[in-house]
Amino acid sequence: MSLSRALRYSVIQRPRFLAELKDFIRFPTVSAQPKFAVDMRRCAAWLASDLRRSGLKGARVIANGEHPLVYASWRHAPRRPTVLIYGHYDVQPPEPLHEWITPPFEPTVRGRDLYGRGACDDKGQMFAHVKALECYLRTRGRLPVNVVCLFEGAEEIGSKNLSSILQKHRSSFAADVAILSDMRIPAPNRPAIDYAVRGSLAVELEVRGPGHDLHSGEFGGAVHNPLQALAEILSKLHDERGRIAIPGFYRRVRVATTRERDYLKRVGPTDKAILEETKARGGWGEHGYTLFERTTLRPALTINGLVGGYQGPGGKGVIPAAASAKLSFRLVPDQDPHEVDRLFRAQIERITPPTVRSIVRSTAAARPAVVSLKHPAIRAAAVACRKGFGSEPVFLRSGGTIPVVDAFQKVLGIPTVIMGFALPNSRIHAPNERLHLPNFYNGIDTGIWFMTALAATQRHSRKPEISRSFSRNVVP
Amino acid sequence: MSLSRALRYSVIQRPRFLAELKDFIRFPTVSAQPKFAVDMRRCAAWLASDLRRSGLKGARVIANGEHPLVYASWRHAPRRPTVLIYGHYDVQPPEPLHEWITPPFEPTVRGRDLYGRGACDDKGQMFAHVKALECYLRTRGRLPVNVVCLFEGAEEIGSKNLSSILQKHRSSFAADVAILSDMRIPAPNRPAIDYAVRGSLAVELEVRGPGHDLHSGEFGGAVHNPLQALAEILSKLHDERGRIAIPGFYRRVRVATTRERDYLKRVGPTDKAILEETKARGGWGEHGYTLFERTTLRPALTINGLVGGYQGPGGKGVIPAAASAKLSFRLVPDQDPHEVDRLFRAQIERITPPTVRSIVRSTAAARPAVVSLKHPAIRAAAVACRKGFGSEPVFLRSGGTIPVVDAFQKVLGIPTVIMGFALPNSRIHAPNERLHLPNFYNGIDTGIWFMTALAATQRHSRKPEISRSFSRNVVP
Repeated sequence: MSLSRALRYSVIQRPRFLAELKDFIRFPTVSAQPKFAVDMRRCAAWLASDLRRSGLKGARVIANGEHPLVYASWRHAPRRPTVLIYGHYDVQPPEPLHEWITPPFEPTVRGRDLYGRGACDDKGQMFAHVKALECYLRTRGRLPVNVVCLFEGAEEIGSKNLSSILQKHRSSFAADVAILSDMRIPAPNRPAIDYAVRGSLAVELEVRGPGHDLHSGEFGGAVHNPLQALAEILSKLHDERGRIAIPGFYRRVRVATTRERDYLKRVGPTDKAILEETKARGGWGEHGYTLFERTTLRPALTINGLVGGYQGPGGKGVIPAAASAKLSFRLVPDQDPHEVDRLFRAQIERITPPTVRSIVRSTAAARPAVVSLKHPAIRAAAVACRKGFGSEPVFLRSGGTIPVVDAFQKVLGIPTVIMGFALPNSRIHAPNERLHLPNFYNGIDTGIWFMTALAATQRHSRKPEISRSFSRNVVP
Repeated sequence: MSLSRALRYSVIQRPRFLAELKDFIRFPTVSAQPKFAVDMRRCAAWLASDLRRSGLKGARVIANGEHPLVYASWRHAPRRPTVLIYGHYDVQPPEPLHEWITPPFEPTVRGRDLYGRGACDDKGQMFAHVKALECYLRTRGRLPVNVVCLFEGAEEIGSKNLSSILQKHRSSFAADVAILSDMRIPAPNRPAIDYAVRGSLAVELEVRGPGHDLHSGEFGGAVHNPLQALAEILSKLHDERGRIAIPGFYRRVRVATTRERDYLKRVGPTDKAILEETKARGGWGEHGYTLFERTTLRPALTINGLVGGYQGPGGKGVIPAAASAKLSFRLVPDQDPHEVDRLFRAQIERITPPTVRSIVRSTAAARPAVVSLKHPAIRAAAVACRKGFGSEPVFLRSGGTIPVVDAFQKVLGIPTVIMGFALPNSRIHAPNERLHLPNFYNGIDTGIWFMTALAATQRHSRKPEISRSFSRNVVP
């Protein structure tokens, strides 16, 4: 009864929900760029006030070093499980700006899509859960389960302070399971639940050569150019079979079962679909695996940016004193980012030519994670997806990294259920990021259904549910 | 008599000459960056007016497509030779700005050096000749030789329109020899004359991969990252012996004589001196040649800049749709930049992986040049250096490129004498560019002496004096 009222309210309020989401996206919450610090604080305050208006009276902003987080809780169902709803209101830098059809922080609806930085990642997806809470609280005055909300502002820069605040306020965050929506589903009518995420290790590799910038006419041909040395070093980090050429790198990579590989081949995107989506000229990477496997079951090393020399219009005859690359690893169970960090540094030392010097700075690290499909919250999520989207969900591995999944496991001892409302063409992290609005509305309903289905399960044990042997035996 | 008055005037006026040079440097004449176009025009007008004040009444600004040039002439000595004094008032981009101790366009004297962008390259050096003209004209009312002044504003971007304006106004520019001062000498008491310059070919290499930027979590490991492909391509452009790995590239490179190599070893900087100056950890480049030879007798290929992916603070999980490199070749006789351009494009096509696409854009080209040491103007320059600096000049090859040397030869049929007032530590093209002020004052006197010594020679023939076989037989 209360469920149908909440669902009806959800449909009626759609125009207002969309208007509020646009307000949310207008805040330029780029966590990586210090100039947006004030906008981060304003956005956090706005979000806390929205939660309070929805009925979560204690919602508040908590300072957390770099960027504040927004916290709220509702614990009035003593015999029901507690779910921690996680999301992040910070976004990726919007550059390159000239490629946006409409400005990144002026959300615009075109067709059935809402365009803007953060429309999908993660403002739009987390806001679906925020509005699901409102639908229940405004129509019924209560929730079917206990809820803790945690919306952070530093996900895109590695959630560095999150673990310590979880540790410090462990009882405030206590829950049986976490849920987050920050992923892509294969199609609008094909919901999905992610049972694994890749870990990550972000590093900056700087190569230093001469003591100062040199004229390339005067010295070209006699001095090892750091740009040249950087290109040489980077080109040696993969072998001719597309594998990462760092001794020991693959040692802890768990070998996937034939059963899981077969399942993923059946439900995951085909090579053809990935090539069509990316408009790449052909596949690339580790031989012997499908493209989807290369982005989920297997680790990867990507150059995210190069900096060095003259980048303005025209040319400049310069040999710069230094050049650097931003790199990120994606790691799979049972790789450990700290061990990979050591292996990487040792290899860089080995392959750096004696004519230059290399400096490695590690900027973020998160372990990979995999969750048991037998967990009651996974079952509840499956019901919610079926009801919210009108079709059976598939179970997938994600290629991305969600550092909080690691933190929730390590600090709170709880597994995380990941279900998303983004699409393959949502342009996450890229210009013209967009949210398919039917997914947003289905997402709100999925949120409502998730709490309802979770309430029907018994109170969960606090026992960690992340199973390292999952992939061997629980593929559905 | 008139000579000694000019030299005395030169000493007395030093404080004003320095003040005027500072005014000249204050114009931010960065020809590569369109936003400075107005400053370019203002600077050209200032320079023309300075020449008129000095006594060159017809000095004027001539529009020349991109940036105007400044022209003046004095032709009242019918039986004397005519010298074309060339210089450029445009400068290299000052970036990276944060490395400047004092701002690039706020010229500042520290010790005996004047700091500022263009202090050496080329404002300070060309201004020495401008002031030498003034010393003669103000004390004597006439010059010992005929003079044409040509000060352009597009040298740092390849002097693209210069050839056509020379062609169009060939009679206005008619001269027996050109002189330019835009080079480094080994030490303040060791003047030098350059008898060869390297040619150049500047290209931009763009690598395109996916149709749009991708999330490196979602696609890392399955799509060929243009940054990765660019690093791979760049690392293949040199072989393990430091040679440029482009088939046919060395075919036209003239083999230097043992005699010339011995002479250059004796007068040119040693490997040790070059390493000390650049603060590089060791030499690099083509095996079998000294570092000085690698920068003068031998061609080079330098990466001047890399652009691609995220370059802001922090990280960004992105696979960019494209990445590019700015590259420049330095060429030696008898290489032809247009042939090298074809060879480079063919090689890029061969080594570009099928997973990406390469696009090559050529942005500037100039042929290498070498001049006969027997030319009377070279002899006059040697006298002038000895008198101006108080010691014998050495004859060197320059590693840099001066496209006008090619244009003067091709269009006006005249050779160019190159003598400079910059030093090895002048930081040309780099932050904290500086001019050693004693060199500036000696440079003015050298300019005065050059005109005097040239007047003593007979009127030169217009016959081209650049000898392709020079290096075989005229090393002093």
